Amino acid sequence: MRGRFIVLEGPDKSGKSTQAALLIRYLKARRIPVLHSREPGGSALSEGIRKLLLHPRYRVHPLAELLLYEAARAQHTEETLRPALARGQLVICERYTLATLAYQGFGRGLPMPMVRQLNHIATGGLKPDLTIVLDIPDSEFDSRPRLKHDRLESEGGDFRKKVRRAYHVLARRERGVLLLNGREEPQTLHASIVAKLARFLP
Amino acid sequence: MRGRFIVLEGPDKSGKSTQAALLIRYLKARRIPVLHSREPGGSALSEGIRKLLLHPRYRVHPLAELLLYEAARAQHTEETLRPALARGQLVICERYTLATLAYQGFGRGLPMPMVRQLNHIATGGLKPDLTIVLDIPDSEFDSRPRLKHDRLESEGGDFRKKVRRAYHVLARRERGVLLLNGREEPQTLHASIVAKLARFLP
Repeated sequence: MRGRFIVLEGPDKSGKSTQAALLIRYLKARRIPVLHSREPGGSALSEGIRKLLLHPRYRVHPLAELLLYEAARAQHTEETLRPALARGQLVICERYTLATLAYQGFGRGLPMPMVRQLNHIATGGLKPDLTIVLDIPDSEFDSRPRLKHDRLESEGGDFRKKVRRAYHVLARRERGVLLLNGREEPQTLHASIVAKLARFLP
Repeated sequence: MRGRFIVLEGPDKSGKSTQAALLIRYLKARRIPVLHSREPGGSALSEGIRKLLLHPRYRVHPLAELLLYEAARAQHTEETLRPALARGQLVICERYTLATLAYQGFGRGLPMPMVRQLNHIATGGLKPDLTIVLDIPDSEFDSRPRLKHDRLESEGGDFRKKVRRAYHVLARRERGVLLLNGREEPQTLHASIVAKLARFLP
């Protein structure tokens, strides 16, 4: 049986990791075989690429940034996601192609058809069964503490505003994308996510 | 004045670096403003990507490899090549888009239209004025010593044969590509290259 592929999306600090952890615990308690992954990353090479992308030292041209994300995605998809789905696992992945449309397309202003084309090439056409966007206002960003900001988190507020708007637009336009309120209490939000996932569970 | 863009191509150890060095010395002696670069590399980020590509530790899926080369190329093109050409410099670059057709297209068997499309995206359509392929028989590979082989140099002889044949085919089919005999004495080969370059020099 082919597994199911669920993606958690949203701006930085929108609670993706928290919700992924709650979801994994929930699924494991029900003995549902599950794989937790994230982008950029999810394979040795992709984690190496992640380091390049996030390192504040490098100047990264928007097009190079896009291609790096897609390279990491190609490796992650072939090495990690497809085998897990083939084994029948439920895959919970933090970020996938929608993030690239939001950040590199809307955020950096790269042409959307090119971003879609590269998404398609890198994934070989693999699409999530469901993408859940956790929506938080930009002001939340500063109030959720983190020790150090990486290269992308250091982007200004205008960029974050653009990305948030992008997620709103994409949630309306794209198929299989749901927008949930990321400001809800983690357990309340978790319950909503579990409800939305019900039809994908065995 | 827009500068000129010359690419040296060929399999590993075909003498690209030797010929590039001879050419740079020749051009500098004539006070022709010149930039020497190479792929993958040629910018801080691209050198970081080069390390990922060549490190024997990583498993690299052919599609991820292609996208990494193109990411490095996008950065290199925007950060290094275009500014140099805009300054009117003569750019001597070891490897560019033809290598990707030879290695990732013919060598790895990725679909050529996809490789061409990604070459086009990564370069924004920048094309060399002239590409010179240094042709050496596969047997030369083992006779030209090097201390350590990187991930790509460790490919088997079949792969090297494919790549050599690819360069032959490409030199016939592509515009602005010349095949020269890489087994000639370095100074003889250098003189041939200088003759081919004459029409691009001020």
